[in-house]
Amino acid sequence: MRYHKIPDETIRRLPVYLRGLLFSSEKGRKNISSLDLAKLLAVNPWQIRKDFSYFGDFGTPGVGYDTEKLIRHIKKILRLDGGHKAALVGVGNLGGALLAYDGFGVFGFEIAAAFDIAPHKIGQKMHEVEIEDVERLATLGERGIGLGIIAVPRAAAQEIAEELVSAGVTGILNFSPVHIDVPKKVKVITIDIAMDLARLPYYMPAG
Amino acid sequence: MRYHKIPDETIRRLPVYLRGLLFSSEKGRKNISSLDLAKLLAVNPWQIRKDFSYFGDFGTPGVGYDTEKLIRHIKKILRLDGGHKAALVGVGNLGGALLAYDGFGVFGFEIAAAFDIAPHKIGQKMHEVEIEDVERLATLGERGIGLGIIAVPRAAAQEIAEELVSAGVTGILNFSPVHIDVPKKVKVITIDIAMDLARLPYYMPAG
Repeated sequence: MRYHKIPDETIRRLPVYLRGLLFSSEKGRKNISSLDLAKLLAVNPWQIRKDFSYFGDFGTPGVGYDTEKLIRHIKKILRLDGGHKAALVGVGNLGGALLAYDGFGVFGFEIAAAFDIAPHKIGQKMHEVEIEDVERLATLGERGIGLGIIAVPRAAAQEIAEELVSAGVTGILNFSPVHIDVPKKVKVITIDIAMDLARLPYYMPAG
Repeated sequence: MRYHKIPDETIRRLPVYLRGLLFSSEKGRKNISSLDLAKLLAVNPWQIRKDFSYFGDFGTPGVGYDTEKLIRHIKKILRLDGGHKAALVGVGNLGGALLAYDGFGVFGFEIAAAFDIAPHKIGQKMHEVEIEDVERLATLGERGIGLGIIAVPRAAAQEIAEELVSAGVTGILNFSPVHIDVPKKVKVITIDIAMDLARLPYYMPAG
């Protein structure tokens, strides 16, 4: 099921809410009010209520939202409920950091394969993932890996994207600060750290 | 000068527009229409016009926006016009990737100092930045470094944040997937890669 009328900005915030709800659930809370969730995440409670209104109302006045129910529902909307396998391409500094990163599991992601072009890296294991020759990208489809993470130098990003798409990947997280052309059915999210840094000075006190 | 009424979501998009405008300017274009800018960035032209309307109108019907004027104006709003020095704390895999990253300069950022706790790293040079003992964080104020980038294990993030704040840092880019408590005058942007990955499946074709 796909919820077509949820704005992108709401979709952007859902993983944030999800993390807050998972945190709250771990602490054993069965219910949470929009006000408490807002405090926990340092966001606006009005925003939370508005975002949740796009997919129905899970709150009971005076009691708050049913934490588990809301977690299941958000996971379903974001289609995180089935789990996802991702392939990492490029095991340099950034790729190594991504393999070491332990925050993917909470959302049901697993880096199930890693690829590089450097002969001395191929065959080595990093954080329990064996690094494979980039030539083997074509095997992703038969291995049920539908997500790609691009962490290669920018000159190689477009070519790798095309190989991922050929192998059946339909979602790409791109860390090369470069625009990637893919067919419309493939979704690319480009992470440009400089863009996030660029928002900081606006919020800083004038010095 | 500070523009108080610009929504956070618009501020989030301004660096994206800025990059598109800089790209367009490099190609020698004096003007660009909202439609062309939208195509270049794969965003909605209506959104661009609405965002730009918050800070005045720089477009001429039939001609488009004056590229240079708009670049200067967005840089001024984001307070990127003066340039900013940042201190990186934690030179592991991720920190190394950040030092190697060449996308900061375009927005006027420079990683001017790097710190680590490991004795064998201190004194070494990486990408022309000498790694210093984390004990020296207190010197940031006198060196005119007002931004901090946290790339340490999550258990150390809060302590490092406090040391950065003590040294006069008022903006922090945090890569530890953990909430950091700082005084209100300090702005923290936390980058959680898993959150971006979590948005992908929603947009992917059902498999």
